[in-house]
Amino acid sequence: MDFLNRQARLIESLGSFHCLLVTSLTNIRYLCGFTGSAGVLLVMPERCVFFTDGRYTEQARSQVSGAKVVITRRPPALAAGEWLIRKAGRWRQKRVLGIEGEHLTVAARRRLSEVLGNKVRVREAPPMTEQLRLVKDEEEIRLISEAARLGASLFDCAVKFIRPGVRESEVAGRMELAARQGGADAMSFETIVAAGPRSALPHGRASTAAIPAQGFVVCDFGVILHGYCSDRTRTVWVGQPTAEARRVYAAVLEAQQAAIAAIRPGMGVGEVDRAARNVLKRSGLAQHFTHSTGHGVGLEIHEAPRVARGQPEKLQAGMVITVEPGVYLPGQWGVRIEDMVVVTEQGCEVLAPASKDFIAI
Amino acid sequence: MDFLNRQARLIESLGSFHCLLVTSLTNIRYLCGFTGSAGVLLVMPERCVFFTDGRYTEQARSQVSGAKVVITRRPPALAAGEWLIRKAGRWRQKRVLGIEGEHLTVAARRRLSEVLGNKVRVREAPPMTEQLRLVKDEEEIRLISEAARLGASLFDCAVKFIRPGVRESEVAGRMELAARQGGADAMSFETIVAAGPRSALPHGRASTAAIPAQGFVVCDFGVILHGYCSDRTRTVWVGQPTAEARRVYAAVLEAQQAAIAAIRPGMGVGEVDRAARNVLKRSGLAQHFTHSTGHGVGLEIHEAPRVARGQPEKLQAGMVITVEPGVYLPGQWGVRIEDMVVVTEQGCEVLAPASKDFIAI
Repeated sequence: MDFLNRQARLIESLGSFHCLLVTSLTNIRYLCGFTGSAGVLLVMPERCVFFTDGRYTEQARSQVSGAKVVITRRPPALAAGEWLIRKAGRWRQKRVLGIEGEHLTVAARRRLSEVLGNKVRVREAPPMTEQLRLVKDEEEIRLISEAARLGASLFDCAVKFIRPGVRESEVAGRMELAARQGGADAMSFETIVAAGPRSALPHGRASTAAIPAQGFVVCDFGVILHGYCSDRTRTVWVGQPTAEARRVYAAVLEAQQAAIAAIRPGMGVGEVDRAARNVLKRSGLAQHFTHSTGHGVGLEIHEAPRVARGQPEKLQAGMVITVEPGVYLPGQWGVRIEDMVVVTEQGCEVLAPASKDFIAI
Repeated sequence: MDFLNRQARLIESLGSFHCLLVTSLTNIRYLCGFTGSAGVLLVMPERCVFFTDGRYTEQARSQVSGAKVVITRRPPALAAGEWLIRKAGRWRQKRVLGIEGEHLTVAARRRLSEVLGNKVRVREAPPMTEQLRLVKDEEEIRLISEAARLGASLFDCAVKFIRPGVRESEVAGRMELAARQGGADAMSFETIVAAGPRSALPHGRASTAAIPAQGFVVCDFGVILHGYCSDRTRTVWVGQPTAEARRVYAAVLEAQQAAIAAIRPGMGVGEVDRAARNVLKRSGLAQHFTHSTGHGVGLEIHEAPRVARGQPEKLQAGMVITVEPGVYLPGQWGVRIEDMVVVTEQGCEVLAPASKDFIAI
């Protein structure tokens, strides 16, 4: 990973901030490579300094790129504050320290201010690192593709275990074991296996309920591999398929394919959402598509951009997003079909492409 | 669960705060029963109001006790702020709203302040709900005991799969599947299966490394069942045991038993830590016991009190804590033995007690 380039681009975007205290562990990983669970990165034009505690001495020294490593007994954010205070005497004017407002608690900020006193001005910074993370570089796209392939393979496992009477949690457990066996760091979110009427819940994570004799089973699942997340949904039918089940499935698939076909750089994310929604409108199902069409994926399972109505973001080559329309008929069942795509110069490429034909078990 | 009683006790502790905005989802669950992923609870002496979004309409109505439910399209914390503002006109004096400083981001607080303007004063409140959660009631102890029993059963699964050449992640995956099959909501933390030299890392979560022919394997694992967490560690030896392995194991076990034997209400948590540490001192191993002796467990895997040197907390009947001394010989291996105990009037009771004899596989 080209951490130095990332740090340089962040420093270029500092604007009126003299320095930035990065407290999001995901942003820290992105900027300097550290994967542990405690630490802060202080970014200054002249240098970056990473603060962590004694548990991470070895790990920080082997992982951190482009930043001096300071091991501290104090909470790392306070150690960073004290470090700044020691520098403050040499400054001719009061410096402005940017903080990540979405990644610092009110209590942590209070403790930081107690350390800084009136020697350093603290101001909430815009999400500058998140802005960099929007567009993935080649190495990231390679890792995300690998995660997507491992994630996609779990569906074969699901199909093997989905049967009437089997618990949703058993299917999820088998998929999670397959993920472990495939080398996943972890699952990227709580596995959803939602059968029968539960498939009508867009976020019905696997319960101990048994799969009924007839109906859809929505499986939404993902792994973390080398830090990067995958996200995929497949829906299968159990029992003798009804005409309505086939009709709704076909409509959702057509909506998903229309959205994927529409994607190209420069396009607003709202247009991708509209492409999916328009197909469902024609089938009279749009009112049952109750969530947005997708979201960015990378080091986090949900990151910018939100692919939804009214969102201002424009697609750029190198963005990785999900395309996941769904239709939910309360009390009956639901259907969702999801792939990850990477936006390319020409349009987009589906990661780990595979058949999405209607499957009856 | 006696939610009304919990709310009443919280209201009694409000002191100079006129109302409290509860933003920790765990505290919300504790106070009113809601288990979803978005919502805030506004606690006032005259009433409690719970704000959530449309995804949780049904769930909130069926789960929430002792609070009026408001469904909102706005972020719930802002909806709560607007609700307060509408009330503000009727107040004779400016009210003080307490916020949970450890459970509200700087950005969320800024957005809240933008809504409140100067009509309501916002102040960081002490962790009042966490204070209530320190001592578990009968119903909680029953649920924690159930979680502890399910969690404990995973060790049988571990013993079945631990063999030289098997990957740590395979063992973890099998344990996690057994947890799913036993009805767990989820694991309470990332399963640790750390073999050979990796067992010397106190937090070596299961990797894809194969279990070597000889050495300890530390298994630290827990489930969430009906919302409550379990936490347990067992360490087994693989291969022909050495005298040193037996000696260190015996010392850690003696340290753990000494700490458990010492526990009684009124005792400082630091004394529990000392009881374990003194045994290891006598065996010349104290410098290799590099973490604290335990922590509270309940709705969260780590909650108050910290059972460590220098902590002021005194044990009370109804607290549930872990007792988990360990010895780590860098580059060689480590041993940790952990049980959960509930503090009783007479001393304490180990949850899901089972043999801790030295096991060689």
